[in-house]
Amino acid sequence: MPRLNAFYAQSGGVTAVINVSACAVIQTARLNRKRIGKVYAGRNGIIGALTEDLIDTGKEPARAIAALLHTPAGAFGSCRYQLADFEKDRSQYERLIEVFRAHDIGYFFYNGGNDSADTCLKVSQLSARLGYPITAVHVPKTVDNDLPITDCCPGFGSVAKYVATSMREAAFDVASMAKTSTRVFVLEVMGRHAGWITSAVGLADDKGTPIPLLLLFPEIRFDEAKFLAEVDARVRKFGYCCIGVSEGLLNPEGKLMAEAGTKDAFGHAQLGGVGPLIASLVKDKLGHKYHWAVADYLQRAARHLASKTDVQHSYAVGKAAVELALAGHNAVMPTIVRTSDKPYRWKIGVTPLDRVANVEKKLPRDYISPDGFGITAKARAYLEPLVRGEDYPPYEGGLPRYARLNNTAVPRKLESAFKI
Amino acid sequence: MPRLNAFYAQSGGVTAVINVSACAVIQTARLNRKRIGKVYAGRNGIIGALTEDLIDTGKEPARAIAALLHTPAGAFGSCRYQLADFEKDRSQYERLIEVFRAHDIGYFFYNGGNDSADTCLKVSQLSARLGYPITAVHVPKTVDNDLPITDCCPGFGSVAKYVATSMREAAFDVASMAKTSTRVFVLEVMGRHAGWITSAVGLADDKGTPIPLLLLFPEIRFDEAKFLAEVDARVRKFGYCCIGVSEGLLNPEGKLMAEAGTKDAFGHAQLGGVGPLIASLVKDKLGHKYHWAVADYLQRAARHLASKTDVQHSYAVGKAAVELALAGHNAVMPTIVRTSDKPYRWKIGVTPLDRVANVEKKLPRDYISPDGFGITAKARAYLEPLVRGEDYPPYEGGLPRYARLNNTAVPRKLESAFKI
Repeated sequence: MPRLNAFYAQSGGVTAVINVSACAVIQTARLNRKRIGKVYAGRNGIIGALTEDLIDTGKEPARAIAALLHTPAGAFGSCRYQLADFEKDRSQYERLIEVFRAHDIGYFFYNGGNDSADTCLKVSQLSARLGYPITAVHVPKTVDNDLPITDCCPGFGSVAKYVATSMREAAFDVASMAKTSTRVFVLEVMGRHAGWITSAVGLADDKGTPIPLLLLFPEIRFDEAKFLAEVDARVRKFGYCCIGVSEGLLNPEGKLMAEAGTKDAFGHAQLGGVGPLIASLVKDKLGHKYHWAVADYLQRAARHLASKTDVQHSYAVGKAAVELALAGHNAVMPTIVRTSDKPYRWKIGVTPLDRVANVEKKLPRDYISPDGFGITAKARAYLEPLVRGEDYPPYEGGLPRYARLNNTAVPRKLESAFKI
Repeated sequence: MPRLNAFYAQSGGVTAVINVSACAVIQTARLNRKRIGKVYAGRNGIIGALTEDLIDTGKEPARAIAALLHTPAGAFGSCRYQLADFEKDRSQYERLIEVFRAHDIGYFFYNGGNDSADTCLKVSQLSARLGYPITAVHVPKTVDNDLPITDCCPGFGSVAKYVATSMREAAFDVASMAKTSTRVFVLEVMGRHAGWITSAVGLADDKGTPIPLLLLFPEIRFDEAKFLAEVDARVRKFGYCCIGVSEGLLNPEGKLMAEAGTKDAFGHAQLGGVGPLIASLVKDKLGHKYHWAVADYLQRAARHLASKTDVQHSYAVGKAAVELALAGHNAVMPTIVRTSDKPYRWKIGVTPLDRVANVEKKLPRDYISPDGFGITAKARAYLEPLVRGEDYPPYEGGLPRYARLNNTAVPRKLESAFKI
């Protein structure tokens, strides 16, 4: 069997631990040098393949690759770019084959979420459709935790740990200030369509540290009167109230609050997200002084607060992807399979990619409390193992020292350019 | 000499490490039981004294007090409340004496910033003005770092470490996404009048990790044309640009951008802070896709990322405050005195409180680069030691386990109530 090269790329929104999967792919490939030659990384995801903009990861010393274990975001650059349907535009696929053939690429590893799984699935069909032999394996990653089949998605555990920790810390702050100042604190979190991250905010409140907390999920349409009554009741009882709100909260008509919340609804036009909108509503209708935070990229880039479990998952799926490819699996994705909650046990499974691509797994209704503003014991049992364990990056002069690779370009072999 | 009780309280915006000073005051008092009887904490700052709402810290076991070392925010509650001028309203002062006398309080420790120093100063004058013998010592604390005389303020080092780390992490994220998505990232930070926290964002960019970064200080009025040109130049050269902006940024007329930025200036009315405003401006004028974050309380409550140096400072000033009081100093504040940058060396000094109360120390112009958008080597030399060292809290089930005290009330001795 000829020794073929591998292509690896990162796609979609990055995470605190996607580079852990990159490290795993590269290290596992290096352990299998007899089967896999070079690992070429695509600069900016699939765009790197289309434009023959390849990075030779072989130029990076082992130490630099190992440093990916503690470096957030996408070391090779990511992209938001989907391949067109095969029937609509064959040229992209022909171009991929041209580049893969020029560089002896026989393995394709794509590290991303739902949309990216679709790209990987399309690449996996190059053999059948255009006769170019390639083995394509998807490496799961998304802070949104909305991939089906897998118990959880690498990237989610760390953002979950971040938002729960941040809300707990802010709650201690608000509790201190509530007597004469801020009584309501709003934290806006990511997760436009699925409330997984919002549910993780709920971990801030536990038996050891009760916090008067309300959650606003994208799965539950916003009921202003009910919400305001709940906020007011908590402020009266506890002196303060914390609110975790998904960026994807919908109004009763099913429109994004962040887009719909204009002058008509609240007397203000709005520039920010739904967090400031909710805070302003509380002020206008209840008169409580508020503060709000929008964590945005901070939450998904927070490698300083990564979940050790998440780091381990991320490594395992990268390693498994290479092993699956070497075992001849095409069009698959390694999954995290939970075998026990307490003690938490998991193993790696595998699923056909067509069961994953473009499918979104929302937060189940029984993870949300009956009133729609909290999480259930079932949700806690699911979430808790995922945030467990700390995995600190190295610090230098008080700040995390994250790695930047040299990202040496592979010399181009093709005359032709490709316009994306 | 009779054994007198001590009063300790927390005032103003809380920090990740103000409880470290509380711990130091209580532990140091416990080491001096022959001189100091009980330590009573005011529930919600000076309000606790005025309303005879005192907490008996003696009811807390040593372990609970030690847990304050890793617990953010104000364990006894803080307040935003200033005493009126003595000439205008004597009743507050007479009430304080009534409460202090009822509980044999001879030592007053107030833990706060500029405004709180004014309260402490006024209390220190009770002896001279009203004949009640009390020793009042201020314990410095403010994330804003704007107290004079002291080299830095406990609380600042940790928020500095947080904003620098967060910006560095977000910058890695934006760099990954810039090819097809976000090109400009804006982080709004605290510090309404002084740009110390904004300057700390500048540490994200260093020789090991260069980041195209622009800072917007409250000390430098916003110049839209110059700013946009700088942003565009960085995006063209590096593919992306990061911006750290103070919540207190002023427009050319000296008005707060966050309040002035209405429809007239940018075509939007605004609900959020200056962060989203700046982001929207970049989008409208340059067309770059943006993300923005407002860290708000997250930055000052982030005990999970506290600076070890800051923790050490915070303990030292609490300890020194008690020692100064026992040595007979009244109306003073312990200070941090820097004796060397490299290696960083510091010691505790002392200053009369009237040199501190209501005085704001702004960021010196020579800490800001000539173009107004960055920090100088002098600023770096000042800032770097303050963020140094990690001091992680204990974790339980993946989240920091912060302490809540029982805060047992001291039985009231007075019949009269006091309305605040």
